[in-house]
Amino acid sequence: MHILVLGAAGMVGRKLTERLLRDGRLGKSDITRMTLQDVVAPAPAKTGFPVDTVTGDFAVAGFAEKLVADRPDVIFHLAAIVSGEAELDFDKGYRINLDGTRMLLDAVRLAGGGYKPRVVFTSSIAVFGAPFPEAIGDEFFQTPLLSYGTQKAICELLLADYHRRGILDGVGIRLPTICVRPGKPNKAASGFFSSIIREPLAGQEAVLPVAETVRHTHATPRAAMGFLIHAAGLTRDALGPRINLTMPGVSCTVAEQIAALRRIAGDKIASRIRREPDETIMRIVGGWAQRIDARRATALGFRAETSFEDIVRTHIEDELGGKVAA
Amino acid sequence: MHILVLGAAGMVGRKLTERLLRDGRLGKSDITRMTLQDVVAPAPAKTGFPVDTVTGDFAVAGFAEKLVADRPDVIFHLAAIVSGEAELDFDKGYRINLDGTRMLLDAVRLAGGGYKPRVVFTSSIAVFGAPFPEAIGDEFFQTPLLSYGTQKAICELLLADYHRRGILDGVGIRLPTICVRPGKPNKAASGFFSSIIREPLAGQEAVLPVAETVRHTHATPRAAMGFLIHAAGLTRDALGPRINLTMPGVSCTVAEQIAALRRIAGDKIASRIRREPDETIMRIVGGWAQRIDARRATALGFRAETSFEDIVRTHIEDELGGKVAA
Repeated sequence: MHILVLGAAGMVGRKLTERLLRDGRLGKSDITRMTLQDVVAPAPAKTGFPVDTVTGDFAVAGFAEKLVADRPDVIFHLAAIVSGEAELDFDKGYRINLDGTRMLLDAVRLAGGGYKPRVVFTSSIAVFGAPFPEAIGDEFFQTPLLSYGTQKAICELLLADYHRRGILDGVGIRLPTICVRPGKPNKAASGFFSSIIREPLAGQEAVLPVAETVRHTHATPRAAMGFLIHAAGLTRDALGPRINLTMPGVSCTVAEQIAALRRIAGDKIASRIRREPDETIMRIVGGWAQRIDARRATALGFRAETSFEDIVRTHIEDELGGKVAA
Repeated sequence: MHILVLGAAGMVGRKLTERLLRDGRLGKSDITRMTLQDVVAPAPAKTGFPVDTVTGDFAVAGFAEKLVADRPDVIFHLAAIVSGEAELDFDKGYRINLDGTRMLLDAVRLAGGGYKPRVVFTSSIAVFGAPFPEAIGDEFFQTPLLSYGTQKAICELLLADYHRRGILDGVGIRLPTICVRPGKPNKAASGFFSSIIREPLAGQEAVLPVAETVRHTHATPRAAMGFLIHAAGLTRDALGPRINLTMPGVSCTVAEQIAALRRIAGDKIASRIRREPDETIMRIVGGWAQRIDARRATALGFRAETSFEDIVRTHIEDELGGKVAA
């Protein structure tokens, strides 16, 4: 099985690649080759099968054709401009997030010879926009409040139409907020959800810009890898025509996040969170989904953590080698 | 006020144009100029203000820029490849229904100088796909089962994002099936809903290919004109961020359609319907929306007929000069 990963140098892309290289198989099939694409060179890898890296912008004419020329069996499409950048740079956001995806789908469509790969597309709960019901169900409509969410919602529609026409076997997975996100603090409005766990555990202070009553839905990077790999194995029959799925996660308040951190790592670590209200972030976060009722995804076998304590423990295991700075 | 109509030679386009020319005003503003575009020359018109006709394919590079160069205040965008053709010709459907619309929106975006027209876009209930709830509510999701519906759903998302960014004042209206559609029978799967009223009233036989228990939602061409004109007058504040609206209509069974025809025109006319079941049409129609709960549109002042008898009477008034062939 030949696997192509678009956006392989991003956080999710790197973790997915590591996992696939470690497993050496996807579902019941041995991996025989991988192709990793990103705008910067994805990390090289040592393995028993060929791993090609392709550096370049996938939304440039002709690039997608080259990527599918060797007919990868499974395409993980994780490449995207993030929400903040897509909002600031109209042209870049639409070019990468919409046109790039369409070029990929059309390259598959025009490849000929009965080529019909499995395409796993990472979408986002940004396809939804406030006001929300108590919980976002499987039939709730898409009214994104950012260009990023608009572009993701459009790509979901394209993927479903190409799937329906038999051009590919598509599945779109709407990721909740990934928490705890490894690495350094970034300027994303959602960054604090991870910072308030990650920084204290690493012996550093974190800033909490919103009230502790704020509720949100989270899943770990490990759960996200599980979503991607599970999605790649779903059959057309199991999915039915509604191929874009909201993934499950842990819905909890910031207070519950902090309580979980305290129970696992103690008062000293949990006291490294400084309250510094930020009106802008409060306003942005106020428009986000609080609860997700991911019934279909759960019925199809997608699994997230079941408590925020699990999320903290997974972070400590996967990123801190099981150790916590006192 | 300068009004541009895209797709002015189609059935809805012609009727809208006639109505605007007759009224000489839109809402509280006098019309001072109209520009009518279509792939074939729209009908010329006699009026007190200039009416330009522009013939050509609006999805050709540079064409949209020319259409907005004179900065029309209101753009009615009715141009589309119909569902059957968009399904058969993948490239043509996406080129006209998606790329053409995006070119128009981008021409507005790049016009500069604070240009911000009102754009009224005709969408369709084809953005929805079975299985349906008892009635399709305002928050039901979009899972189209045809490329046409996919393209309409994508254009709705684009329109909403351009509206949100302040590039234009957009409103999308999802039309139900237009009934009674004037003119000759066509091969659309939905054609019989109109045929079984129109042909008998004109002294001809009509074929009914489905069971009389089939339920569907209808609005007259006159109601559709009302939707378009009402939409053009809605303010940004009244609309809020959810600018794509499902229009109301009359939900009834085929049996109720026929009963209304019989009450208005008599047994002899109603007996001109021949039952000739068609498995293909039954299967297609089985996937269509039966009932629409258009609460938001109704609250915003959109009005359809309230009974199928009204629909039959409107057809007799508007298309038959008030007379029925015995």
